[in-house]
Amino acid sequence: MTKLNIRIAKVEDIATILYFIKELAIYEKAEHEVLASESSIKATMFAENSGVHGLICEYDGVPIGFSVYFYNYSTWLAKPGLYLEDLYVSPEYRGKGAGIALLKRLARIALDKGCGRFEWSCLDWNKPSRDFYEALGAQSQDEWIGYRMSGDTLVDFAS
Amino acid sequence: MTKLNIRIAKVEDIATILYFIKELAIYEKAEHEVLASESSIKATMFAENSGVHGLICEYDGVPIGFSVYFYNYSTWLAKPGLYLEDLYVSPEYRGKGAGIALLKRLARIALDKGCGRFEWSCLDWNKPSRDFYEALGAQSQDEWIGYRMSGDTLVDFAS
Repeated sequence: MTKLNIRIAKVEDIATILYFIKELAIYEKAEHEVLASESSIKATMFAENSGVHGLICEYDGVPIGFSVYFYNYSTWLAKPGLYLEDLYVSPEYRGKGAGIALLKRLARIALDKGCGRFEWSCLDWNKPSRDFYEALGAQSQDEWIGYRMSGDTLVDFAS
Repeated sequence: MTKLNIRIAKVEDIATILYFIKELAIYEKAEHEVLASESSIKATMFAENSGVHGLICEYDGVPIGFSVYFYNYSTWLAKPGLYLEDLYVSPEYRGKGAGIALLKRLARIALDKGCGRFEWSCLDWNKPSRDFYEALGAQSQDEWIGYRMSGDTLVDFAS
């Protein structure tokens, strides 16, 4: 009998989600960039008609990991894609298949929703994760460079 | 009097949108990857409650460029972001400010929708575009590598 259970995140999970967001940011060496709060997560992820979704992974009923995802869009395919924004499993529970179980559930959701692609991003120095993703058959899109405008630059540019 | 006009894409623009999608793919050396058709664009971008939006840029009333965008999500900010999937201006109309006008309109929409970020991707060999984006103050996210699972690999992994 498996002790792993994956379920849709509910509004009661917000404190858990914020905890995992911060843990993942610490791992990504970006803790100072986390401005999210329980109230801002509630107002966005859990707003009516939100396009942002969460999964909670439990082990023996205890939340040990999560994922947050939304749908992007490919003009080449004229199909939505599932974009995985965050995936995290607590270090003390790794090696029990939680990460791959979350990824497989997301792949299933992607197909059920008619998506042509399942996509995510990984830090270039995170060699263990990159090796893991490539072993699963995912293809790195390293010819694409992301660009971001934010903060005062965005405000100035828009005006 | 400016001859440039940017407006929301309508269902009547589908043939124009598909034309621009194909032109952009040719420029990106990926024409063979365009599987979109007028009917599949209608069924996705123009579905009820679609999260995918388009802008058409006209010059003297003639469509000369377009953009397609959707909203992504940052768990660090607990805010949506505006993600620009496609931006294209016909070569014979470049240099008239259409590209920057489209980008500025998207930046304005991002702020009006409470987004914390305006993001897009660019091919690494497209130096003119990268220089242009960096001159606007956009920051390259080159420490992040995109991963994609699709086709038979996705089906096999999900099952």
